[in-house]
Amino acid sequence: MKFCSKCAGKLTVKIPSDDTRERHVCDSCETIHYENPRNVVGTIPVWEDKVLLCKRAIHPRLGFWTLPAGFLEVGEPTQAGAVRETLEEAGAHVTTGPLFSLLNVTHVQQVHMFYMASLQEPVFSAGVESLEVALFTESEIPWDEIAFPTVKRTLEWFFKDRAAGKLNDEVVTHLADIPYDERIDRKYRHS
Amino acid sequence: MKFCSKCAGKLTVKIPSDDTRERHVCDSCETIHYENPRNVVGTIPVWEDKVLLCKRAIHPRLGFWTLPAGFLEVGEPTQAGAVRETLEEAGAHVTTGPLFSLLNVTHVQQVHMFYMASLQEPVFSAGVESLEVALFTESEIPWDEIAFPTVKRTLEWFFKDRAAGKLNDEVVTHLADIPYDERIDRKYRHS
Ligand SMILES: [Zn+2]
Ligand SMILES: [Zn+2]
Repeated sequence: MKFCSKCAGKLTVKIPSDDTRERHVCDSCETIHYENPRNVVGTIPVWEDKVLLCKRAIHPRLGFWTLPAGFLEVGEPTQAGAVRETLEEAGAHVTTGPLFSLLNVTHVQQVHMFYMASLQEPVFSAGVESLEVALFTESEIPWDEIAFPTVKRTLEWFFKDRAAGKLNDEVVTHLADIPYDERIDRKYRHS
Repeated sequence: MKFCSKCAGKLTVKIPSDDTRERHVCDSCETIHYENPRNVVGTIPVWEDKVLLCKRAIHPRLGFWTLPAGFLEVGEPTQAGAVRETLEEAGAHVTTGPLFSLLNVTHVQQVHMFYMASLQEPVFSAGVESLEVALFTESEIPWDEIAFPTVKRTLEWFFKDRAAGKLNDEVVTHLADIPYDERIDRKYRHS
């Protein structure tokens, strides 16, 4: 961030008078340009005893498997964003349930949220961001080819809760912070 | 948003080739400038049978009562942001528990999250953004002077769950979307 999006003035990094943190402040119009983490919203789409995963057609983690998820848009509630991403990436219509997990990924300035979801019918197809979409039983999950730590943890919690009979309307939201050393290592990225 | 924050070029609103939504795109360097909702994180600070509220010293809703909450900063997990805001606004050190509520406020492009929290001792003081900070029992809550719909709903859920004996480690996260007609009406704002 170098220039003011309002007036094209030059930005200086400094601590505004009523603040405690460095911000990008416009030299000309004095607008403070805040930066904030972004939300990634997705679902755990369930059909019978299976979960729907998408094989990524885009970087990062091309060729790895993920739950359908993407950036929350303005004007969109989190559940609606998760439903939209599931339709776009997996061609699947879902109904969302409780919030299943919320994970902070501070090194990429993201908060990931996954909702419980039910497929209305076993119909799905790869969107432009997916190479392939498929239903997996627990034993079929490709654990070594999961795209992101937040997806891996969410799937682990899901199967653990399911085995314990905890996947009802009273789901307890799982919380975690992803440490820097669990970040995606780009040398393992397919290309 | 009128100018590119990278190169100061003029921005045009258009749908990028691989997208389905209008974005601000730079005429010069072609950078797409996305807009995303921001997270507001806060706590329900509990001491014995009381909840800590702050009387706002700033607009909007100056003079109305709120749970301590504010914008999540980059590099900060959601729980840590909620703890920081509680210290800044209420001068109180808290330990967070489960995520208690998550509310979409799409008309202001915000997602609000409130965590269960325990005061470590009954020590608190008004920060620069608060006129006053005080502990309230359920019957003392100033329901007609609550600053925001997300705070009102969270407090209502809290006391309902408490009465039902549901405030343990297995708290079920409450979810809601705040409709446009529950927005803050500025004519009722103190000044
Ligand atoms: Zn400016
Ligand atoms: Zn540019």
